Amino acid sequence: MIKESKFESNVRNLHYGMVGGGEGSFIGDIHRKAAAFDGKCQLIAGCFSRDYNNTLRTGTNLGIAADRLYESFDEMAAKEAGRADGINFVSIVAPNHVHYSAAKAFLSNGINVVCDKPLVFRVDEAEELSELTERNKLLFCVTYTYSGYPMVKQARKLVKDGKIGDILMVVGEYPQDWLISTIENEGQKQAAWRTDPNQSGVSNCIGDLGSHIENTVAYITGLKIKSLCAKLDIIGEGRTLDTNGSIVIKYDNGSSGIYWASQVAIGNDNALKVRIYGTKGSLEWYQENPDYLKVTYLGQPLQIYHRGCRYIDSVASSRIPPGHPEGYYEAFANIYNRFASTLLKKNSGEIFNEDDFDFPNVKDGLEGVKFINSCVKSSKSGAVWVEL
Amino acid sequence: MIKESKFESNVRNLHYGMVGGGEGSFIGDIHRKAAAFDGKCQLIAGCFSRDYNNTLRTGTNLGIAADRLYESFDEMAAKEAGRADGINFVSIVAPNHVHYSAAKAFLSNGINVVCDKPLVFRVDEAEELSELTERNKLLFCVTYTYSGYPMVKQARKLVKDGKIGDILMVVGEYPQDWLISTIENEGQKQAAWRTDPNQSGVSNCIGDLGSHIENTVAYITGLKIKSLCAKLDIIGEGRTLDTNGSIVIKYDNGSSGIYWASQVAIGNDNALKVRIYGTKGSLEWYQENPDYLKVTYLGQPLQIYHRGCRYIDSVASSRIPPGHPEGYYEAFANIYNRFASTLLKKNSGEIFNEDDFDFPNVKDGLEGVKFINSCVKSSKSGAVWVEL
Amino acid sequence: MIKESKFESNVRNLHYGMVGGGEGSFIGDIHRKAAAFDGKCQLIAGCFSRDYNNTLRTGTNLGIAADRLYESFDEMAAKEAGRADGINFVSIVAPNHVHYSAAKAFLSNGINVVCDKPLVFRVDEAEELSELTERNKLLFCVTYTYSGYPMVKQARKLVKDGKIGDILMVVGEYPQDWLISTIENEGQKQAAWRTDPNQSGVSNCIGDLGSHIENTVAYITGLKIKSLCAKLDIIGEGRTLDTNGSIVIKYDNGSSGIYWASQVAIGNDNALKVRIYGTKGSLEWYQENPDYLKVTYLGQPLQIYHRGCRYIDSVASSRIPPGHPEGYYEAFANIYNRFASTLLKKNSGEIFNEDDFDFPNVKDGLEGVKFINSCVKSSKSGAVWVEL
Amino acid sequence: MIKESKFESNVRNLHYGMVGGGEGSFIGDIHRKAAAFDGKCQLIAGCFSRDYNNTLRTGTNLGIAADRLYESFDEMAAKEAGRADGINFVSIVAPNHVHYSAAKAFLSNGINVVCDKPLVFRVDEAEELSELTERNKLLFCVTYTYSGYPMVKQARKLVKDGKIGDILMVVGEYPQDWLISTIENEGQKQAAWRTDPNQSGVSNCIGDLGSHIENTVAYITGLKIKSLCAKLDIIGEGRTLDTNGSIVIKYDNGSSGIYWASQVAIGNDNALKVRIYGTKGSLEWYQENPDYLKVTYLGQPLQIYHRGCRYIDSVASSRIPPGHPEGYYEAFANIYNRFASTLLKKNSGEIFNEDDFDFPNVKDGLEGVKFINSCVKSSKSGAVWVEL
Repeated sequence: MIKESKFESNVRNLHYGMVGGGEGSFIGDIHRKAAAFDGKCQLIAGCFSRDYNNTLRTGTNLGIAADRLYESFDEMAAKEAGRADGINFVSIVAPNHVHYSAAKAFLSNGINVVCDKPLVFRVDEAEELSELTERNKLLFCVTYTYSGYPMVKQARKLVKDGKIGDILMVVGEYPQDWLISTIENEGQKQAAWRTDPNQSGVSNCIGDLGSHIENTVAYITGLKIKSLCAKLDIIGEGRTLDTNGSIVIKYDNGSSGIYWASQVAIGNDNALKVRIYGTKGSLEWYQENPDYLKVTYLGQPLQIYHRGCRYIDSVASSRIPPGHPEGYYEAFANIYNRFASTLLKKNSGEIFNEDDFDFPNVKDGLEGVKFINSCVKSSKSGAVWVEL
Repeated sequence: MIKESKFESNVRNLHYGMVGGGEGSFIGDIHRKAAAFDGKCQLIAGCFSRDYNNTLRTGTNLGIAADRLYESFDEMAAKEAGRADGINFVSIVAPNHVHYSAAKAFLSNGINVVCDKPLVFRVDEAEELSELTERNKLLFCVTYTYSGYPMVKQARKLVKDGKIGDILMVVGEYPQDWLISTIENEGQKQAAWRTDPNQSGVSNCIGDLGSHIENTVAYITGLKIKSLCAKLDIIGEGRTLDTNGSIVIKYDNGSSGIYWASQVAIGNDNALKVRIYGTKGSLEWYQENPDYLKVTYLGQPLQIYHRGCRYIDSVASSRIPPGHPEGYYEAFANIYNRFASTLLKKNSGEIFNEDDFDFPNVKDGLEGVKFINSCVKSSKSGAVWVEL
Repeated sequence: MIKESKFESNVRNLHYGMVGGGEGSFIGDIHRKAAAFDGKCQLIAGCFSRDYNNTLRTGTNLGIAADRLYESFDEMAAKEAGRADGINFVSIVAPNHVHYSAAKAFLSNGINVVCDKPLVFRVDEAEELSELTERNKLLFCVTYTYSGYPMVKQARKLVKDGKIGDILMVVGEYPQDWLISTIENEGQKQAAWRTDPNQSGVSNCIGDLGSHIENTVAYITGLKIKSLCAKLDIIGEGRTLDTNGSIVIKYDNGSSGIYWASQVAIGNDNALKVRIYGTKGSLEWYQENPDYLKVTYLGQPLQIYHRGCRYIDSVASSRIPPGHPEGYYEAFANIYNRFASTLLKKNSGEIFNEDDFDFPNVKDGLEGVKFINSCVKSSKSGAVWVEL
Repeated sequence: MIKESKFESNVRNLHYGMVGGGEGSFIGDIHRKAAAFDGKCQLIAGCFSRDYNNTLRTGTNLGIAADRLYESFDEMAAKEAGRADGINFVSIVAPNHVHYSAAKAFLSNGINVVCDKPLVFRVDEAEELSELTERNKLLFCVTYTYSGYPMVKQARKLVKDGKIGDILMVVGEYPQDWLISTIENEGQKQAAWRTDPNQSGVSNCIGDLGSHIENTVAYITGLKIKSLCAKLDIIGEGRTLDTNGSIVIKYDNGSSGIYWASQVAIGNDNALKVRIYGTKGSLEWYQENPDYLKVTYLGQPLQIYHRGCRYIDSVASSRIPPGHPEGYYEAFANIYNRFASTLLKKNSGEIFNEDDFDFPNVKDGLEGVKFINSCVKSSKSGAVWVEL
């Protein structure tokens, strides 16, 4: 059905800066389009690269004033904090190893943070950021993309409302195939940093994909992982980090989970699928066809929930009518849109409601870091069980 | 696979104005987001509504200078044409009955046009616009959305390259269900104007949906309709325009087609599907899962082509890696992006190549008007065959 | 769910003979397996071919007594009618041009008939068989295969119960691709007789496939065709019969239909799909995945009904639990099983209920013959409208 | 494509007896229909139940002579072995706890065996049967149903031919939902014996479903399990056996696997799915739509292989044309058909080829028993790794 649209202002209410995302970056443009999508955020400052010339070229192309282009994020954090018209938040999209120090710099200067995932390398770093965020009363959003999809929000709502009962079993998978060949040796930059422990940390596949399963499941179900057993495989000549992993999970409610992530499973691109089985019903969501949610109630036929239809909950907010697909950009934009709305509320002193915090935050990022490190620890010890 | 992205400038190179798209409009925001997506087009002028107050409110919200907000499109066309910094093109997104006079005003003033579909009501109007466009050496883009999807472009390429051989049969369908109830009587504005002959012209369902089948088939195959036989049904108490239609087609190459469009087929949202059968192979594309194209070559298994993969032709240009869905917004943005690139080339006097004109133009719009009028003529005469 | 099974006797209660189905026949073995499946029918007589040696070889291989193997169906009809232990019914599986005279011979001798489809070539022949059947109080089953699928019966039940409301639109299609090459010239026997007017009658594609759409729609909906407009295409060098056809339908209740059948649509095998749209809901059934039925009620999500589940009506009788697929053989066996049960009831003088006659009968066969002939008549007259 | 069919004799060449399968049995009728399907096997003896009256009623209904109906399988084995016209093989379809002693009785008497799965409870029992089979030069078929599906045979062939390269990862799952409620307390007999350790042995879910994953993977890939780690869950009030299980596998070639089986996953019926990922390509087969096999070669689009098409290998033998679905019965019949052909060859002293042994045998049954027992051992020890 064609609905009347809400009127969207094009006047940017929030100003933000960016760390990373210079020439050569893939994710930088995604973040900028996502931030711009709903007309709430304007990019006015940046430290787009360690290479200042890159920052200058990027910033000029983006129409940013010269005095808001910085040589380092430390300088940017300090100077923006010192301005009356300083940025309202920073978006950190640099490679993983930069996240911790960059986030710390902005938090310390009282600036709200949006940060790509995984949050950081080490649990103590994540805990420190979490404490800093709380102490300085800031908002911290970790852009786990898939939490932005409307039907993921619908799934979360159905679980919250008890529609599928107590959860018994979770099955999550995220296979890709782009690392089946050792393309890091052929100059593919994404492959190069993903397979490099200095830039990716202790894990490649689980850090990149497994953590998306972990967050999507946590976002939908609210379950906490109690312990896990992970068998990680390093497939690919000369590699030192995992490219495939099988994980069995025990959740805090006594239920079980099984996760599989892979970068070497031919025929898969971004085939994230999450299935939740409860005592009253079940849910299945598949990222490559994201406008649909499979829902089965005990003894009834499978139902295919479709984004934007009348029976869909308002929290699974839609932009366009059902049947006109929304995709990855829109999901990403939903995260920024929610973060921006909440930040505007915060800035104006409005009262929050539960839905204002439906974006992944620094504590969710911390859970992700714990998960990744526990998987690696388990696997290195012979795939034994590890408590989180 | 995660690819390196091209660096997109945020500096708007083209300035445009908009007719229609004020408060209450659905499609206006879509056009604005699509135009903005790739950083080439900046909205700087507008006549967003017949109600000048609406135009003022809309324009202010969009950050447009007061002297570029106009009471009528005639005034806007004349004044913008008179300015040294006048708009490079206008985007006409007002209801259908406005298209003709608005487009004529801008073309006459030497301003390029982007116009929503269907182009106009009558064939002679369409012919006039086509001649004006040619005479004034202007670009005219009709935003048939589905021509913007990468896998539709891939389908077109496969046909052009002779991969499916001579076309034997075409099957097209576009069912919806949003008019199964007479919601125009309950204040639903979209339903009200769609079912109103004064605003929609001689046809509702074929004008809206049938024309999308017609254009998508024409875009992919290049086939011209020679004659057709249409049985249109007016389903819904008190309605005077069609809400369902069955059409049999003879193409100029001697092959056959069958089209079905409906607004009363429960369970369908925007279920546009086009199937092309040739002597060597076949193609199937489905708008609700648009990143995929089914391809079968004689004697071989069905293959599922996936946007962004290595075997995909460059003309089916992708923004993000396969498996991260692109949707309706991105398809729309592709049309603006191509139109803008071609206009920039034109403005700078660059030499064009074939791909520069892969957006639907005023002649395609004319074909659509002929198609709609022929369907209505056929049906009113008892579903007899009508030559186009 | 694993259910307790009913106990099936292996003692054949009905004896039958067969006309056609000798060496080289495809459909003969299908009929024999289907008849044997539920242990109610035993083959004890036959005239399997015009070639008596073929009949003898076939009969011997099938363990049939020599004195029940006949040189002609006329001899068989007469002699079996004369025996105290004569056959209870005959199964006619010879090519189409034999159906009329063979069926007439057995009906005239008071023997019940099962006959492959299409029933006969001409409307007057079909009417004669229908009258003979009625006059002699016999059972006559036409084996339209798809009426035997459980989920087709479920669809019929939902329509009967008014669950989808008044029918507004029907979309039926049956594409294949096996005649895309002229394999009749390469010794393919099936292709040879299908494309031969002497053996297939006035139509190939509509006679074979279109008539399946016609019957499946009629079986599910009970709608009668009032008039139709058919454009048939003869695709394939040297052919004289249709291999592709597009048909627009007016039903007696005022609703519309659109049918497409093809033998030259690359990528299709037996892709029969029927969609029924009503005022309250819609149904979709696809023969290549036959255990499922898509059902959508107005304003609700699509539901996937699955054969054998608890919410399925008893008339859609299942043999094995859902998720263990039943296929073509089982559908065929369901027709024989129902026919045999009804014949046993008739023989024992039991009282019938409505479900006893849920197999297609001679009147349904007559409708099919009318449909085929009307399509040919329409097409030959330039695809004009023809009343049935 | 419609093919000419091979001529099938109806004269039963092999005589067999049955243990189990009396009134109340589900699987007995399946086995009898499967054995009868291709006209090679005739049932002439039986001990259908521990209750002799059941055996008598069942046998009489099946038309079996009174002197071939036995009070015990021991008596049957001895007497049939003593007759000149004794049975060629026995089919054991009684509950699991009967398999060992029944199979031993017939093997000891020199009679070939077909036995339902899982083979027996204990590894030593399986080893004993395996040795007896070999010593007495008998054929022993374990009816793992899914090995009978044509597209599973196609998958096996592709792996054998090296088309997908070295296997890197296997993902197998078999969810059902029929035990989500404790229906064993409501008189459901299947549920009662499945959840009863006396009749099911040490495992319910893994014994029933996990072992199907194990065999299907082994059948397709030839991989041996080296070690495994299993977390089994007992879901359902009052139960003592597993109803859900997650298993991580190390295969002998160094690759990994992950299996999930469940009887409490709402929305699943017999959703067995196996995915095989290699260095050159991947395969996916899904039991609920069994005529299709997804095949992807590195860098190419997903291909959907369809049973019966020209590009399908002859070993994946088809009965009917593609697009007319074959299902569970036909898969089961394929196992009997292959077993019977091989037994006929053996009896006539013909020379075997590799394909003659493409049915699961007693050694495959032994692997299954090891797998089940290892899963239980692992889980009971806290989900630790266990060598097979």
